Amino acid sequence: MAAVPELFTGYGAKSAEKWTNLEKFQFKPKTFEEFDVDIKIDFCGICGSDLHTLSGGWGGTLYPSVVGHEIVGKVARVGAKVTSLNVGDIVGVGANAWSCGDCRYCKKDLEQYCPNLIETYNFTYSDGTRSWGGYADYVRVNERFVFPVPKSLDPAVVGPLFCAGLTVFSPLIRNNVTKGSRVGIIGIGGLGHLAIQFSVALGAEVSAISHSSRKKEDALKMGVTNFVTLDTLPEHKRSLDLIVCTSFSKEMPLAEYLKLLDVGGTLVYVGIPEADLPSLPPTLMIGTNAALRGSNTGSKKEVLQMLDLVEKHDIKPWVELLPMSECSEAVQKQLRGEARYRYVLKNDGTFD
Amino acid sequence: MAAVPELFTGYGAKSAEKWTNLEKFQFKPKTFEEFDVDIKIDFCGICGSDLHTLSGGWGGTLYPSVVGHEIVGKVARVGAKVTSLNVGDIVGVGANAWSCGDCRYCKKDLEQYCPNLIETYNFTYSDGTRSWGGYADYVRVNERFVFPVPKSLDPAVVGPLFCAGLTVFSPLIRNNVTKGSRVGIIGIGGLGHLAIQFSVALGAEVSAISHSSRKKEDALKMGVTNFVTLDTLPEHKRSLDLIVCTSFSKEMPLAEYLKLLDVGGTLVYVGIPEADLPSLPPTLMIGTNAALRGSNTGSKKEVLQMLDLVEKHDIKPWVELLPMSECSEAVQKQLRGEARYRYVLKNDGTFD
Repeated sequence: MAAVPELFTGYGAKSAEKWTNLEKFQFKPKTFEEFDVDIKIDFCGICGSDLHTLSGGWGGTLYPSVVGHEIVGKVARVGAKVTSLNVGDIVGVGANAWSCGDCRYCKKDLEQYCPNLIETYNFTYSDGTRSWGGYADYVRVNERFVFPVPKSLDPAVVGPLFCAGLTVFSPLIRNNVTKGSRVGIIGIGGLGHLAIQFSVALGAEVSAISHSSRKKEDALKMGVTNFVTLDTLPEHKRSLDLIVCTSFSKEMPLAEYLKLLDVGGTLVYVGIPEADLPSLPPTLMIGTNAALRGSNTGSKKEVLQMLDLVEKHDIKPWVELLPMSECSEAVQKQLRGEARYRYVLKNDGTFD
Repeated sequence: MAAVPELFTGYGAKSAEKWTNLEKFQFKPKTFEEFDVDIKIDFCGICGSDLHTLSGGWGGTLYPSVVGHEIVGKVARVGAKVTSLNVGDIVGVGANAWSCGDCRYCKKDLEQYCPNLIETYNFTYSDGTRSWGGYADYVRVNERFVFPVPKSLDPAVVGPLFCAGLTVFSPLIRNNVTKGSRVGIIGIGGLGHLAIQFSVALGAEVSAISHSSRKKEDALKMGVTNFVTLDTLPEHKRSLDLIVCTSFSKEMPLAEYLKLLDVGGTLVYVGIPEADLPSLPPTLMIGTNAALRGSNTGSKKEVLQMLDLVEKHDIKPWVELLPMSECSEAVQKQLRGEARYRYVLKNDGTFD
């Protein structure tokens, strides 16, 4: 394998004004340290977070911005203290790139909640260098956030597991979804189509909740028992133990969704809208002992559990491969909601 | 014991306009049925709900309105199928008076979430008769919602346990508060002063959270470890596993309170403001896997657990007794926030 270059090359947005026009440029990765791993990128999924960041919709985007955190590639270089990986290993990277390793969260398999967490892109390390995403030739990540890809899985399609997949797997596991659980998945997209498959594999009775019936046929193929559209929500009051809400817009009827929960149930939201959560009537959650909970990705421990479930149940992200060199077009397709259900960029030699 | 009259007599508000001027009048209780119990009232606590209802602040008040749901008295008459109680028993009644008994909630000790629940006052039974509260000579309640008062407890002070107490006991138990749990109680009032004592008795390390330090000395007597005021909230980020929020106004800094939760923590709110919940920043709960949950009173099973804890740990509601005939003045004192920490109306013969 060729030596890792000092500067990496990626496709990114130079400004909020021209964010859908990704340009190729070189950038300086974080300082290489003894627990770091350089990965030569083969595939990178396109996540909703990428678009919120490129556009500046969430605020705080550091331009120029190279995004992408559903990365699959080969280990090209390991730091002196890396023990779990070797050059040539096929690995994945998700939304996070570094945590302190010392705090009580890092020590309790909750590293994604480390107060000093660095995400895979758009974050700044303590020495002032930055984190950069996977629409690029290489990515540099702390060993803890590099996940082995099991040999039985196709590297071309597993990238979405490391962000979309983990983000929905964690709340399913942490809320004890098991045989007979009544689980609702709001939004059938990159996250939702994996949440449905995981829930089915865990033995749950799954309801897909969507604003229209366009994706009904696909959802049935994924294993859902019920398909609920907005106009039929009132028929399903108090019918679910857990809802994972993958699609969060300020217009969505959050109060109506909460009414789907049975007594003691929880709605976990994992999508971040570009506005505040809607205000709720005060008695709504009191009336059914219901909860609204947030959840941020998952831990490495949960990644390994997820990969185990994926292997055992032959779960597959529904993926369309597009060439990395056409990432601008891919982002625009994603923005138009055309993905069924995840675009993955394939390194087509554009950086050679 | 004298025969139960056909009409009961109570103090109530005739309209929203004159709600702090409670007038004495007679009213027709619900139709007496075979599972009903008539109780001659000796004591009735004044709950915040009473004021929200009398004033019409929550909306939906049926005038004339007789409130009161922290009732202690003696059983005066039992329906033909009542098996657990006898005439003369000293008993308590809380916020609820009837549930169907047949649904899956009633069968799983979640009767307070029965879809057809009738609260102790301001509700209408299926035959059109109404439920009326405890600022009165008698109350008529379904057997399931009548609780035995243990002989070791003083009937004059236990009334507040049946609404205020149960409302905070249930979320503590359902969220597994135990030795070492880090519990925050927002609002040191009728509910909060019991929540603090219960949490301490369960072995928790308790933080009282109040808008000022006026009640600090009392809170320390109740056993709190930390006393947190609004200006010191930022020093306590991620420090609590569970928060029970007993005081809910639209001005309160809900977002700041949620930041007190450690990863995976839950804020349970049990107070109902007269406005919608404040809108929240979307990343707030995602950042710590935090939850906002509502809770409505508790079950009879939990009442019995609570009374057991109260007896074992000699827990006492801090109560000031006021004569029933002066209930208007008492309500006005409560409205001015003067209670330390619960007013209990004592039947002073005003109905004889």
